Amino acid sequence: MDCETYARELAQAARRASRRAAVLDTETKNEVLEAMARRLEKSAERIAAANVLDLEAGREAGLSAAMLDRLEITPRRLAAMADGLRQVAALPDPVGKTIDERVRPNGLKITRVRVPIGVIGIIYESRPNVTVDAAGLCLKSGNAVILRGGKEAIRTNRVLGEILGEALDEAGIDPAVVQVVAVADREVVNRLLKMDAEIDLIIPRGGEGLIRAVVEESTIPVIKHYKGVCHVYVAASADQEMALEIVDNAKTQRPGVCNAVETVLVDAACAREFMPRLAERLGEKGVELRGCERTRAIVPGIVPASEEDWPREYLDLILAVKVVDGVDEAVDHIARYGSGHTDAIVTRDPEEGERFLSRVDSSSVFLNCSTRFSDGGEFGLGAEIGISTDKLHARGPMGLEELTTYKWVARGEGQLRG
Amino acid sequence: MDCETYARELAQAARRASRRAAVLDTETKNEVLEAMARRLEKSAERIAAANVLDLEAGREAGLSAAMLDRLEITPRRLAAMADGLRQVAALPDPVGKTIDERVRPNGLKITRVRVPIGVIGIIYESRPNVTVDAAGLCLKSGNAVILRGGKEAIRTNRVLGEILGEALDEAGIDPAVVQVVAVADREVVNRLLKMDAEIDLIIPRGGEGLIRAVVEESTIPVIKHYKGVCHVYVAASADQEMALEIVDNAKTQRPGVCNAVETVLVDAACAREFMPRLAERLGEKGVELRGCERTRAIVPGIVPASEEDWPREYLDLILAVKVVDGVDEAVDHIARYGSGHTDAIVTRDPEEGERFLSRVDSSSVFLNCSTRFSDGGEFGLGAEIGISTDKLHARGPMGLEELTTYKWVARGEGQLRG
Repeated sequence: MDCETYARELAQAARRASRRAAVLDTETKNEVLEAMARRLEKSAERIAAANVLDLEAGREAGLSAAMLDRLEITPRRLAAMADGLRQVAALPDPVGKTIDERVRPNGLKITRVRVPIGVIGIIYESRPNVTVDAAGLCLKSGNAVILRGGKEAIRTNRVLGEILGEALDEAGIDPAVVQVVAVADREVVNRLLKMDAEIDLIIPRGGEGLIRAVVEESTIPVIKHYKGVCHVYVAASADQEMALEIVDNAKTQRPGVCNAVETVLVDAACAREFMPRLAERLGEKGVELRGCERTRAIVPGIVPASEEDWPREYLDLILAVKVVDGVDEAVDHIARYGSGHTDAIVTRDPEEGERFLSRVDSSSVFLNCSTRFSDGGEFGLGAEIGISTDKLHARGPMGLEELTTYKWVARGEGQLRG
Repeated sequence: MDCETYARELAQAARRASRRAAVLDTETKNEVLEAMARRLEKSAERIAAANVLDLEAGREAGLSAAMLDRLEITPRRLAAMADGLRQVAALPDPVGKTIDERVRPNGLKITRVRVPIGVIGIIYESRPNVTVDAAGLCLKSGNAVILRGGKEAIRTNRVLGEILGEALDEAGIDPAVVQVVAVADREVVNRLLKMDAEIDLIIPRGGEGLIRAVVEESTIPVIKHYKGVCHVYVAASADQEMALEIVDNAKTQRPGVCNAVETVLVDAACAREFMPRLAERLGEKGVELRGCERTRAIVPGIVPASEEDWPREYLDLILAVKVVDGVDEAVDHIARYGSGHTDAIVTRDPEEGERFLSRVDSSSVFLNCSTRFSDGGEFGLGAEIGISTDKLHARGPMGLEELTTYKWVARGEGQLRG
């Protein structure tokens, strides 16, 4: 079968299945999620057999140890996947929720009701747990999903998809509610990205290169974040001990993730005191600082930052630092170089704090806490399908509700427009 | 200046202006809206002078009488524009509204707050009142706007833009909050549609051709509706008198608009009685019916409908009619041929009504009322920037709230992630 035909069959099957998925009741969806979890647990050997083949192929292809590690499904990771499905079952069902209601002067009762989006395509890299997590979230929100993981995990993902499909089938639900792209050819993805009549939303998860390629190709709306160039601004009035703790946590607790801090801006009024303390604290943790000229005048020996450092997402133990003259310059710097992900201020001045929170136009803005809290779980959404730095539909961590849209429902008794 | 440079300057000026517009307080915005209204009223002669030139050029270019009529700014239409701005001033300001708030176990206070989208591009055809209406709605929602009307109205739109800009300038606000594209060259639009770093949203309003061209070209998210192929399904249990009134109203009250009905589906169980009554009633109103074979067996002499009639938006006194076997076939027909705009059922059976409302995946679904109610004003939104048949962000009539997004705000006292 050629790529176009294969992609079209996937997309059309998903569209058909989505109509049924949209009207499943909560209890049925939760039962299927539980059945999926049980079936995964019982299929440890079958999953391991496929996973071993992916791991062998990965070793032959020269994948790094880190990539091979991400690819591996250990018993603990399998248990976590099953557990994740049960957690999704325990979350409230967003579908059918009335957003608002009003009765018009002519007696028309008008409500807005949450409904599933329809068909969602998820494109992601190595970790096979995304296959299960994303399938669970899409099912719970009443959507059909097409999952396309990395080619290095294709055997594992295929088996995971089969197992989830069996649980659907057993419950009398069209297994095309969850489909895994079983062909590695990149052309299948490119074809899917043009099927805007069948697929309603694309969520790419992975490196900036993957995401840019998806955005370029897609005629379907894409929700995404390219990168996380997160800032912490340390104001003159900041509790410096708190600021050190926050920057340390935001940089070193997990440097390789998108909500880690990449640039610290320090008000000139406290830089002379704060910068040496910051350099010492982070130096102990093995963090390389790259500083502006004013920083280097205070702490000589710091690597000079170039213009390329300000928009960089290091994802590593490297931190850009810059002295600025007050909150407005910090806000301007973030507007110019930030990525709209998460930016924080540390201050004891409530007015300055509110000025920062209202003027920084990022999906998450924080006062006196670590940027690392920018996360669906930490925000209390229960589970997260991804993070959006876009302006439309969903911004910041996306939970179940962000996988729904709404429709207007009007109920009348024969009203006519005059 | 070449098109690229001109477009870039517009877009960058809008982006700069949007940062200021986003933090204007409600009172200031309302005062500017009032000042805009007054300035429009005082500028009747200046507007008429530009409008006359557009009308003359339009006549020379052979525009139809209907198009020339839409282009003309009569004193009454000018008053309506000013009045529209005052109505927008009276609407609640969506910006800054807290959508939800929660306190996490670690004490973090997390809120989601409505904020403006940023820079919005509106692309529309002939009627110059859109220039003023859209500018008012974008200003009230804290956005900067770039307005590109039809080239036949360019002189009028330019003058309207100048007047709105003067009111902004007088209030000490960057007039680039409202910019009118003053160059007719289509290439300027094409360049704007690629400036996804500066422009956040494109709303095209007009015929399907215009909208498809915008979607093809744009790398910026587009909210749109291509067309309105609205259905009324008449169930077996329908009050037939009510059904006749609703279909008549939905077809003939204003046939040229997107929420007029284009296809009526009739349950076979009542078709023998209902179809002749429908043919008689609409025949009196000069409506041409195009029927399926089963309809023609009941009412001979009706024009046969072809496969091309079902997805057609006539925008005229033409109506496709089809006999179906029950609500599920009606739902299937709408899924296949509908445009996701507005679809209604007429029934006395509440269960059947709810089945239709939940299974038809259109932006607006109605029970026992005319499709013509699908409108921001009729829904109580106050004013409407357009209608969306998309799934993401906004669906159905879009009011002020749909011109905003949200951001996550977290306030802490030094919280770190463990």
